[in-house]
Amino acid sequence: MLNSTDGENVSVYFYNDSYFEECKSHSVEDCLKLKPAGATTWINISSIEDVKAIEDVGKKLELHPLTVEDIINKGQRPKIEEFENYIFIILKMIDIDNKYEVKDEQVSIVLTKDTIASFQEDPIDVFDLVRERLRNNKGPIRKMGADYLAYSLIDAVVDNYFVILEKLGDKVEDLEEELVINPTNLTLQEIHRIRRQMITVRRGVWPLREVLNFIDRCGSFLINDSTRIYIRDIYDHTIQIIDAIETNRDLLSGMLDIYLSSVSNKMNEIMKFLTIIGTIFIPLTFIAGVYGMNFNYMPELKEWWGYPASLVMMLIVGIVMILYFRRKKWI
Amino acid sequence: MLNSTDGENVSVYFYNDSYFEECKSHSVEDCLKLKPAGATTWINISSIEDVKAIEDVGKKLELHPLTVEDIINKGQRPKIEEFENYIFIILKMIDIDNKYEVKDEQVSIVLTKDTIASFQEDPIDVFDLVRERLRNNKGPIRKMGADYLAYSLIDAVVDNYFVILEKLGDKVEDLEEELVINPTNLTLQEIHRIRRQMITVRRGVWPLREVLNFIDRCGSFLINDSTRIYIRDIYDHTIQIIDAIETNRDLLSGMLDIYLSSVSNKMNEIMKFLTIIGTIFIPLTFIAGVYGMNFNYMPELKEWWGYPASLVMMLIVGIVMILYFRRKKWI
Amino acid sequence: MLNSTDGENVSVYFYNDSYFEECKSHSVEDCLKLKPAGATTWINISSIEDVKAIEDVGKKLELHPLTVEDIINKGQRPKIEEFENYIFIILKMIDIDNKYEVKDEQVSIVLTKDTIASFQEDPIDVFDLVRERLRNNKGPIRKMGADYLAYSLIDAVVDNYFVILEKLGDKVEDLEEELVINPTNLTLQEIHRIRRQMITVRRGVWPLREVLNFIDRCGSFLINDSTRIYIRDIYDHTIQIIDAIETNRDLLSGMLDIYLSSVSNKMNEIMKFLTIIGTIFIPLTFIAGVYGMNFNYMPELKEWWGYPASLVMMLIVGIVMILYFRRKKWI
Amino acid sequence: MLNSTDGENVSVYFYNDSYFEECKSHSVEDCLKLKPAGATTWINISSIEDVKAIEDVGKKLELHPLTVEDIINKGQRPKIEEFENYIFIILKMIDIDNKYEVKDEQVSIVLTKDTIASFQEDPIDVFDLVRERLRNNKGPIRKMGADYLAYSLIDAVVDNYFVILEKLGDKVEDLEEELVINPTNLTLQEIHRIRRQMITVRRGVWPLREVLNFIDRCGSFLINDSTRIYIRDIYDHTIQIIDAIETNRDLLSGMLDIYLSSVSNKMNEIMKFLTIIGTIFIPLTFIAGVYGMNFNYMPELKEWWGYPASLVMMLIVGIVMILYFRRKKWI
Amino acid sequence: MLNSTDGENVSVYFYNDSYFEECKSHSVEDCLKLKPAGATTWINISSIEDVKAIEDVGKKLELHPLTVEDIINKGQRPKIEEFENYIFIILKMIDIDNKYEVKDEQVSIVLTKDTIASFQEDPIDVFDLVRERLRNNKGPIRKMGADYLAYSLIDAVVDNYFVILEKLGDKVEDLEEELVINPTNLTLQEIHRIRRQMITVRRGVWPLREVLNFIDRCGSFLINDSTRIYIRDIYDHTIQIIDAIETNRDLLSGMLDIYLSSVSNKMNEIMKFLTIIGTIFIPLTFIAGVYGMNFNYMPELKEWWGYPASLVMMLIVGIVMILYFRRKKWI
Repeated sequence: MLNSTDGENVSVYFYNDSYFEECKSHSVEDCLKLKPAGATTWINISSIEDVKAIEDVGKKLELHPLTVEDIINKGQRPKIEEFENYIFIILKMIDIDNKYEVKDEQVSIVLTKDTIASFQEDPIDVFDLVRERLRNNKGPIRKMGADYLAYSLIDAVVDNYFVILEKLGDKVEDLEEELVINPTNLTLQEIHRIRRQMITVRRGVWPLREVLNFIDRCGSFLINDSTRIYIRDIYDHTIQIIDAIETNRDLLSGMLDIYLSSVSNKMNEIMKFLTIIGTIFIPLTFIAGVYGMNFNYMPELKEWWGYPASLVMMLIVGIVMILYFRRKKWI
Repeated sequence: MLNSTDGENVSVYFYNDSYFEECKSHSVEDCLKLKPAGATTWINISSIEDVKAIEDVGKKLELHPLTVEDIINKGQRPKIEEFENYIFIILKMIDIDNKYEVKDEQVSIVLTKDTIASFQEDPIDVFDLVRERLRNNKGPIRKMGADYLAYSLIDAVVDNYFVILEKLGDKVEDLEEELVINPTNLTLQEIHRIRRQMITVRRGVWPLREVLNFIDRCGSFLINDSTRIYIRDIYDHTIQIIDAIETNRDLLSGMLDIYLSSVSNKMNEIMKFLTIIGTIFIPLTFIAGVYGMNFNYMPELKEWWGYPASLVMMLIVGIVMILYFRRKKWI
Repeated sequence: MLNSTDGENVSVYFYNDSYFEECKSHSVEDCLKLKPAGATTWINISSIEDVKAIEDVGKKLELHPLTVEDIINKGQRPKIEEFENYIFIILKMIDIDNKYEVKDEQVSIVLTKDTIASFQEDPIDVFDLVRERLRNNKGPIRKMGADYLAYSLIDAVVDNYFVILEKLGDKVEDLEEELVINPTNLTLQEIHRIRRQMITVRRGVWPLREVLNFIDRCGSFLINDSTRIYIRDIYDHTIQIIDAIETNRDLLSGMLDIYLSSVSNKMNEIMKFLTIIGTIFIPLTFIAGVYGMNFNYMPELKEWWGYPASLVMMLIVGIVMILYFRRKKWI
Repeated sequence: MLNSTDGENVSVYFYNDSYFEECKSHSVEDCLKLKPAGATTWINISSIEDVKAIEDVGKKLELHPLTVEDIINKGQRPKIEEFENYIFIILKMIDIDNKYEVKDEQVSIVLTKDTIASFQEDPIDVFDLVRERLRNNKGPIRKMGADYLAYSLIDAVVDNYFVILEKLGDKVEDLEEELVINPTNLTLQEIHRIRRQMITVRRGVWPLREVLNFIDRCGSFLINDSTRIYIRDIYDHTIQIIDAIETNRDLLSGMLDIYLSSVSNKMNEIMKFLTIIGTIFIPLTFIAGVYGMNFNYMPELKEWWGYPASLVMMLIVGIVMILYFRRKKWI
Repeated sequence: MLNSTDGENVSVYFYNDSYFEECKSHSVEDCLKLKPAGATTWINISSIEDVKAIEDVGKKLELHPLTVEDIINKGQRPKIEEFENYIFIILKMIDIDNKYEVKDEQVSIVLTKDTIASFQEDPIDVFDLVRERLRNNKGPIRKMGADYLAYSLIDAVVDNYFVILEKLGDKVEDLEEELVINPTNLTLQEIHRIRRQMITVRRGVWPLREVLNFIDRCGSFLINDSTRIYIRDIYDHTIQIIDAIETNRDLLSGMLDIYLSSVSNKMNEIMKFLTIIGTIFIPLTFIAGVYGMNFNYMPELKEWWGYPASLVMMLIVGIVMILYFRRKKWI
């Protein structure tokens, strides 16, 4: 799913229906020199720490200083901004590690008439499928313009959300099982942790919804009508993702309730058992105590039947208490 | 309520006021050949796994590739999309099994000028009543056009929600009774499970409301004014369903509170009883312990009245404690 | 407050400023024959089970089939619908029994240029005051048209909400008192039950608010400007009702908190007292146990002061513990 | 802060920049006879039980019957209504007693071109400052028209909210302190009671916000542009009041949490201590019990060191348990 | 981060691209006399208690009396108001002390064609960076007009929110750690206190968002298009801040749950252990009690094996109970 572009941060792709060429380099200038006429260009900068490259692209595409600043500073919120000559989109690409810790990576996309520039926080990305479709001329991607490429990139990011959510969903199910078998305080912390991951995912996808809605409604001369219908499709996907997140959050909330209830149930059960044991023996011990008194005149003590009688009495008391508890459904 | 169409996935119905014919086959082409002039056509594909048939219909009705994709992929959200030459609607038909587990099935409807195509996730459906009305020319269905058929199909789906909700409502009442008689940890899990089913139902009907509202407000050349009033009627139904769901969810929340409170009440009652028993005997055992001491000079031990006096003392202490507890309303 | 119209389901009233006549019958036709020129007509059907009468009215006033269907089926939501020649309004009239169980009854009103038809779920209604005002020509009712009569009917329904709410409010106060004096698990269930009644009331009045707002804003040729100001007045009333419901619900929520807290406080108090008693005697019993040991060489046992000394020691230990508990504010 | 106008319910004030006269009477007519040309008139009715006076004003200013009805019936919600020839405003003036119980009093204001009429539920009001400014020609009040006077009255009402809120805020702080020092079940009830007062205050100010917003946005020929900016100023004040209420409610919610947690903490601490005491003595009592057994052949009993050894053993067991509890951080 | 301007409350800065002069004084007049033609002027009043200076500026810039009043009264809400000849903005600058107590300071900004006036609640501010950029002609600040300076000031305020939030975030992390290691009732109070600080911060930034949105959307002749894009940038920042606050609040809520659960877990663990100890010894003590009875005919007492047998019996009972508890997973 993820791909690392080694060392050289600049990749440029030129293509049209009949033509495709790619260039990998340290310098944007080097690659752009190769640009043929009538080709759509995709410039991909694979690390936002390569400030030089970003500024080169910024100069080339005449980006506003604030746009360049936004690209360089991570921690932005997904958003879309329309400028006179380009559209600027920020997305959150998410990844998940073995401990189900969600990490988000900022991806900025600049769309001009015939060029797309994309900037990644780090070289790991989800765009391999797009690259492959470009190289092999699969699907309509090379027949359509820069706006369709923008759609393809956003689509790749959104599809990845489904993958991550599925993994989180599996974890939620694991937790649900753990909850039934052996709930511990760790389960509780895990539930809270996964809920937090859900929130992280939602924080990435929620504003994305608005971004896509904005493209769909307000339009722009940079986006063709034929592409707009694809945008609406991703928009539907983001709503599905949000639905799934809400369902999972609801599940997790319910699990919190069940956890708390089952932990206290378990504890109460123990306490009850122990208290019952104690309670049965207390009257018995009292009887034993009575016949342990040293009064001179205790006639029962002198009789041969005294001892067995006292034992029988204890037995009866014990059985009566047990029966009483049974009838009250306490044991 | 549900019906299975065996093996052959394609059913086509041609009808107008005076004419009706149906065709069942493996191939869409085979049936459509039979189409007479001036008839409304309803194509029903009973399994979205029959990709071939779906694509045939797609080609025939000139559907957008994304529409076909949406039809094939389940997990869509109910929605409506207007295209130049057709309206595309996705619905969720729901079913419930014996364990009150709600399952949703995706139904896609394509409405063109004189043709309707419907696509079901699996052959089980709720459209039998519509078919029967078509065959027997009951009601206005054969007098009106394709848009009225679309309404009839949506109406059948929505009416089924009422049936399912009633079943869930019965289950809620059962749970309420169980709660009063014998609440267990299982009751809690059951309450949470039914709440989840409610959420599933709501997830099906909530976006449906928007879909219907959209049809009612924004209109389309494909929907006649006389049909629009029927759409408003289903819209009212969806709001009634949502109301019923909210009421049930509120009930279930209240039941959670009562469950937690009654479980802890029951436990507290037990603990209280047991502690009281223990507490009454503790002073008595102490008295017995005192007269079990082996001091040489304990004058009471020598007297004939010592033993009965100690027993009486214990009795008095016990009675005083019981009276005290009574007065404090603890027992 | 409530009135029953015995057996004959159709009542028709003709009136204008100078004229009034009423007719009670089994048949709508019979009465309508009597209609004089220039009179406003009010047709009241007192049971929606009299389908024949409803359909007669439907034919007479040229109602849409869906309207007739809505009138017959109870379980509708309050709503308003504008048709070409009439306005159709559904209301919920509520009633309360001795157990504070709220029951709602559906009332449908059809308003045409000079005729009003009203349909009740059952003969019990709140319209007696309106009838009386018509008969006795009190207030402006006979001077104004059908729209003012519609207002009067809605007003009667809304005023009844205040009566019901007052009763529920009294019950809430009773519960509040019960909560302070002797809260039981039953109190909890009662609180939840009353909260549910509040929700029922709200479900009747909430959509009514929208209905009235719709009349006020969107207007209709059927409603005169002079009547509209009265509609705004009822609208204000519905908002007052909703406010009162919200306040009551808030009260009930707070009562739930107090209930739970006071029950657990009471229980904790008991447990504390009992545990303290136990704890004081445990060291004393230990001392008694020590001097009950049978060692040959226990010098204290031989002394004349041993017994009183041991008693004094127990007394001191007991007092010290009590003082310690006092200082810690535990007793 | 509050002022009572004794017995005579009607006060009328005539003023312009250079002129001021006031009249106090039982009859509106009596005063209005004195009206000079070119003066702004303020009619103040200090009790809504003086129906005669209210109806006189109603007739004089040509008020709609519903307006008069609204003035007479308390329990209205703050609102604004525009009529052809006047604006009608209902406000809630609030007061607080020593027990921090908030009471609201209805104030109705009618604004016409050159006359203001105000109606109070009872003679206590917050308008003294306005009267004084009129009498002494302080500030711009006598230079401006009736609309500015209306503003001044509303402003006086709103400013009073700040005073009340400050008192409630002080009480909240007191409760917070009480919570830390000695939380009782009474504290809980007090917290809930104050929360309810907050809700009462909010119910007065929340619709007021809409009222002012309405004046600001929709305008009216009766309100000059120069006055509108003052209205916006009160609008800002109402938002500040709502903010303060929300903050206080949040505080009170947090206090509920802390209350519940600290009560249960305190209880748990007691139970823990007591259980520990019990647990330490239980093994010791057991040892004493063993050496209290009456077996003939218990060699330890015969030895001179038996008694001290058993005491030492008990000491060791006790110390070991205490150390164990210490290490576990339980004591 | 913060700077104090000593004693003299008035600072005035004149600048354009090629020119810069600053003046510090007690009197506004003194400084404004120096104003050269064609320069932008920034008047900074560093204490709102210097009413004289504020009124001088008010007169100079022809401010509305209400504006001057708003500047002087702290406790305003962040807002923006457009007047004919100027824009008036109120902001909240926040500061945090060592105990993580957030304090807000009111800053008012008046923007006219070529002059900015800013008013601080106290001399501590966050504008040093802006001053430095002015003095050293860094960045575009001296090339652009008064509106850009306004942006710079707002930007400085907003950037400071990030700093404060970071500190609060660190504190939240500390609390989270404390929660795992050693949760006390103090931790709970601390969590609530930090939550309250979050609310204070949010109260400052939430209306700010609306203010900036207003500038961005509604525009004003006082704000150039080139500046508006910078405003949008701060707007994005405020949304990031709100997001961060929400995330932190969510974290804190989760921490409350974990706190309550872990405290009760810890307590339950203690209670369980102690009860188990008690329960094991209760039957043993009972056995000892039985053989401490003084019956004449207890054959076991006479046998040499009686004592060891009783000890062994106790051992066996103890072990059986421990094993039972083990199997039930209670210890």
